Amino acid sequence: MVVQHPAAIEPGNEAIDLRSDTVTKPTEAMYERMRSAPLGDDGLDGDPTALELERRTADLLGKEAGVFVPTCTMANLIAVLAQAQRADQILVGDNAHMLRMERGNAIFTGVCIRAVPTFRGAVDRDAVAEILTVDRSRIATSLICLETSHNAAGGTVLTLPHMEAIRALAAEYGIRVHLDGARIFNAAVALDVAPERIASHADTVAICLSKGLSAPAGAVLVGPAETIRRARQMRKLLGGTQRQIGVLAAAGIEAIEVMRHRLGEDHARAARLSEALNRAGTTLAASTPETNIVQVDVSKTGRTSFEWVDALTAGGVLTRTVDPALLRCVTHRHITDADIDRAAGVFLTLAGQEQHA
Amino acid sequence: MVVQHPAAIEPGNEAIDLRSDTVTKPTEAMYERMRSAPLGDDGLDGDPTALELERRTADLLGKEAGVFVPTCTMANLIAVLAQAQRADQILVGDNAHMLRMERGNAIFTGVCIRAVPTFRGAVDRDAVAEILTVDRSRIATSLICLETSHNAAGGTVLTLPHMEAIRALAAEYGIRVHLDGARIFNAAVALDVAPERIASHADTVAICLSKGLSAPAGAVLVGPAETIRRARQMRKLLGGTQRQIGVLAAAGIEAIEVMRHRLGEDHARAARLSEALNRAGTTLAASTPETNIVQVDVSKTGRTSFEWVDALTAGGVLTRTVDPALLRCVTHRHITDADIDRAAGVFLTLAGQEQHA
Amino acid sequence: MVVQHPAAIEPGNEAIDLRSDTVTKPTEAMYERMRSAPLGDDGLDGDPTALELERRTADLLGKEAGVFVPTCTMANLIAVLAQAQRADQILVGDNAHMLRMERGNAIFTGVCIRAVPTFRGAVDRDAVAEILTVDRSRIATSLICLETSHNAAGGTVLTLPHMEAIRALAAEYGIRVHLDGARIFNAAVALDVAPERIASHADTVAICLSKGLSAPAGAVLVGPAETIRRARQMRKLLGGTQRQIGVLAAAGIEAIEVMRHRLGEDHARAARLSEALNRAGTTLAASTPETNIVQVDVSKTGRTSFEWVDALTAGGVLTRTVDPALLRCVTHRHITDADIDRAAGVFLTLAGQEQHA
Amino acid sequence: MVVQHPAAIEPGNEAIDLRSDTVTKPTEAMYERMRSAPLGDDGLDGDPTALELERRTADLLGKEAGVFVPTCTMANLIAVLAQAQRADQILVGDNAHMLRMERGNAIFTGVCIRAVPTFRGAVDRDAVAEILTVDRSRIATSLICLETSHNAAGGTVLTLPHMEAIRALAAEYGIRVHLDGARIFNAAVALDVAPERIASHADTVAICLSKGLSAPAGAVLVGPAETIRRARQMRKLLGGTQRQIGVLAAAGIEAIEVMRHRLGEDHARAARLSEALNRAGTTLAASTPETNIVQVDVSKTGRTSFEWVDALTAGGVLTRTVDPALLRCVTHRHITDADIDRAAGVFLTLAGQEQHA
Repeated sequence: MVVQHPAAIEPGNEAIDLRSDTVTKPTEAMYERMRSAPLGDDGLDGDPTALELERRTADLLGKEAGVFVPTCTMANLIAVLAQAQRADQILVGDNAHMLRMERGNAIFTGVCIRAVPTFRGAVDRDAVAEILTVDRSRIATSLICLETSHNAAGGTVLTLPHMEAIRALAAEYGIRVHLDGARIFNAAVALDVAPERIASHADTVAICLSKGLSAPAGAVLVGPAETIRRARQMRKLLGGTQRQIGVLAAAGIEAIEVMRHRLGEDHARAARLSEALNRAGTTLAASTPETNIVQVDVSKTGRTSFEWVDALTAGGVLTRTVDPALLRCVTHRHITDADIDRAAGVFLTLAGQEQHA
Repeated sequence: MVVQHPAAIEPGNEAIDLRSDTVTKPTEAMYERMRSAPLGDDGLDGDPTALELERRTADLLGKEAGVFVPTCTMANLIAVLAQAQRADQILVGDNAHMLRMERGNAIFTGVCIRAVPTFRGAVDRDAVAEILTVDRSRIATSLICLETSHNAAGGTVLTLPHMEAIRALAAEYGIRVHLDGARIFNAAVALDVAPERIASHADTVAICLSKGLSAPAGAVLVGPAETIRRARQMRKLLGGTQRQIGVLAAAGIEAIEVMRHRLGEDHARAARLSEALNRAGTTLAASTPETNIVQVDVSKTGRTSFEWVDALTAGGVLTRTVDPALLRCVTHRHITDADIDRAAGVFLTLAGQEQHA
Repeated sequence: MVVQHPAAIEPGNEAIDLRSDTVTKPTEAMYERMRSAPLGDDGLDGDPTALELERRTADLLGKEAGVFVPTCTMANLIAVLAQAQRADQILVGDNAHMLRMERGNAIFTGVCIRAVPTFRGAVDRDAVAEILTVDRSRIATSLICLETSHNAAGGTVLTLPHMEAIRALAAEYGIRVHLDGARIFNAAVALDVAPERIASHADTVAICLSKGLSAPAGAVLVGPAETIRRARQMRKLLGGTQRQIGVLAAAGIEAIEVMRHRLGEDHARAARLSEALNRAGTTLAASTPETNIVQVDVSKTGRTSFEWVDALTAGGVLTRTVDPALLRCVTHRHITDADIDRAAGVFLTLAGQEQHA
Repeated sequence: MVVQHPAAIEPGNEAIDLRSDTVTKPTEAMYERMRSAPLGDDGLDGDPTALELERRTADLLGKEAGVFVPTCTMANLIAVLAQAQRADQILVGDNAHMLRMERGNAIFTGVCIRAVPTFRGAVDRDAVAEILTVDRSRIATSLICLETSHNAAGGTVLTLPHMEAIRALAAEYGIRVHLDGARIFNAAVALDVAPERIASHADTVAICLSKGLSAPAGAVLVGPAETIRRARQMRKLLGGTQRQIGVLAAAGIEAIEVMRHRLGEDHARAARLSEALNRAGTTLAASTPETNIVQVDVSKTGRTSFEWVDALTAGGVLTRTVDPALLRCVTHRHITDADIDRAAGVFLTLAGQEQHA
């Protein structure tokens, strides 16, 4: 993909944007659906296209009901509001997107968030069990939040047995499981299972229609009908209930019906990048991607990830830092094999300069 | 406008929808703008069309900056979050839409909302002054919220001297004024002034792109740059920051550039309805509309507004209750003079049956 | 009662403190109970004296359980936290102490508070009924809060039929009733009924041990066992669970066992003051007190209540404003008949100066 | 100390209560001060004894002002409310009492709490630095919370250089430091420095008057005058502003003037217990206490800490679990050398049975 990056790139140059799959633009088919979608007032009778998207997403994930929301951040937020009362505790992985990036869960809900140790994006089951045992007499725990594929862990995918084990533990304590499935379709492709298989291990699932699926915006929360009814009330209170929103929901239908089937291409290109970086034998260490995210460990290069991001940007490759030692590259519909090869070249040139300096 | 109302109308029949101007559909020109708008990632670099809408709205209302949000409810919510700290008091009219319908202001902000008596949508200046005097030593008051045109009061318009007086009082106490201007362009048409004149009496203004302006969804909050920067953070925390949202913002540009100029037609049709109802000499008492809302007092008809709404719906005219004695009719782009005349006929037939019963 | 008022009274002079019954000091019997009370750790096994007070208060008011708290403000706050979920609506009289003075209910709970019109401290039953009807489909209402005797209304007492009617209306909608009974024992004396009769019309009741009852501090919330268990958790989260708090609870036992029986004396002195002020035929208009509070309307005297409070203070009589037109005098254990006569004299002298000026 | 433990101990037997120093009873001198303290209305003019305690505590810790509160939990809560705005981030050690036990900070404040890794109660400076670097552009961080001596870490004491380093880092980012000094006087004794030396590395400090200092209840928050003024408002909103509270504050004066000087005795007895347990060569591993808390690692004994607590209770020794592998013993004024020796005996007998089983 080539975009103009206002600050860092000289006029005339074009950057390869590996910052996030959120930069994807709508497809032609999406525009066509947006133009022809039947519309209604979603704050009054319901918008028929939004209702259709909600029904299809619920069906796809094996849940009773769904509610369309402006963003996956709001989907996660109303999942908490609908399933945890004020003063309840909820358990969230210590580097979960909900905890580290979204934060509204902590600010607007009055719940007590307990960060749980994770390994490659998977919460430590024994740690969860100990918390539930120790806290039993102290505070009501009502929700455990999982994330797959896991953003901060580098696009790692929860195994089905892990999810099953967490769900079983939760059930033992009468606790619900929410899945932040912003990239659940990437996970399904990686596991080569139907999305419903993954969703079956959670009570509620938030999915994002933007990111790899390329819809301009929007997300859906699915789950039990009563929970979604409550979540819908919370959506209204937060200002997430829009009017003729079928114009956006229409693109979402294309996203879940069509676009999710092409995510394997992004995964292949992430692997291509990782291999290119590791093959060269520099001090760069790229993760072996499970989905469409490659993390690059720059801790042995003598530069921080902040410095790397700046240097790469100057070379026309846009990336983002994870922490001072790690940066990340995300593949998506606008990234071609040629873009990957060019990006790898910029990385290796910079790494070579580093080693010869 | 004729829509199918699923429950109440028999197949084949079509209803005249006077429930709200929120039912308006996008125009052809909006669809064209949506199709061709330049897009970007509004959570990353900014979406160029959203930025353009924000800039144009700010200019139109004479403010430094603007932020696009999914709904006017969220615009009002982030206005409070950005301008009132936890434990501050804010003053809101006792039948304001923010207080009676949106409610997120009370639930998610930790502010203390004080309802102020209003007359025809205008807060009682003396009551505000007394509250500020009496509470001075007790609690910090940081914001006064006004609304024009005023929904629950029947589309009434605040006079400029009234707004000026409230602003002056607020300034005396170092307090900000927020204007819920969901229908500010209706107010501007009614006063025959530039919208900027109205906005000049408030620090922040929320406008709605849906409703009479016919965009499918979206709203803009405008105000001082530093306040809008803070409001933008709050938007993100609430899950209101969307990605390629230029697809919606594009329709918003059409709304504020073009559609606002036709609102006078809706006002004329509201007047036509009011006159038709009052002229007939039944027990119905219709308000004289200042904008596009007619309230009909049914307290002397022997039926409640709930019963009236049901009877009117059966007759193909959709309306809504305000309270047990009042119902309302809202005109908009899809309502023609013929629709008005037909609706008036249904009203009068029912009123006549009532009187002859 | 004579106290040194640091700012306003010259050395050597002593003021008659009619500002509030909260200024009362512990009795000798209280000090004795405080000295000999068995103590325990109320954050661990429970403090035996606090448990005893909780049991006796619950018995006195005919409720299953009670919880001791530092203040009646906290008792009211945990009553809301225990009985209203986040995003629920609660109804409170528009000049209730909880709404106008305590405010934590609005700030820390995430509930939506709806102010209800009141007359002499009694919420308007028809207004409550209309709110419940209109809001039924919009928001869950979970609690109605009453107050007796009513502070801002001038110590007025809710009639039992009024309380019964509100309770019946609440029951119809599955809503609970909380009674802010900070001065419930004054109300019981005024109605000449057992406190349990009043309490029987509410689910939970907060009582204050300070004020007329003269304990140094503390309050008790009583209600159903499960509600009080939840309230106890909320007390801990707010920082209201203290350790060897039997030292305070002991004084509370004296307050409810002994001191509540003398409140009639305070009522008689309030009546004596009111009569003295009205008998003289000045522009002052004193309310006819139902309990121990006299409100004096100064609106026809040419001075505001703020000016009156200052002038009275200079004359050795401490009072407080209610609003610019009203001030109030509260009788209590330290006020004698002679104090009343002296205070009335100061009032009338000032009123005379006013009239002759 | 010998108390009746209702459930576990047979009639006639007496238990040695090592569960917490919160079980301490008031001294005779405290009762005398409570009896003779001058009192006033702390919700009105201020209670002179509470004001005196606030002034003395502020002086002792080298701060401008102080505010008396019912508990140290509330002191910590108002410290957060007064120094962090809604939506700010605050950093707290991952096993801090504020985070794991008090929790109101998460529930009632709207702040986003970030748990920071700790070692022996000291937050990891590098982790703090990385968070501040990474989050700089994402969220405003306003407060870092420290704890000394550290409860969950087993009464460990922060070194002055560590506190100085954290304060310097905080200053770099314009962030405040709050110290949960519930047991700051134990820390001062352990470091053999004036409490003011410790307090000098924090902006605000919460101290507890109960626990080792033996006052029945109460705590004080000290800090800059403007912050304490704001904290005082928050105390009122939470229901922590009591009336003639000098009766409790009087005991607090004895606590900080007299009782803090005897804490070394408790430390010596904790050491005596630790040595007795470790000397015997069982599978029990006792921590070497820095203050008055001994943690006993039972992970090699074949029993969980829950089983140990039950067995010890049956033997007349009351303790508490920290986690399934750890239990804790806390020494205090009511524990004698003979109690320690008897308790150690019970421990070793049980450990011997275990080893011979």
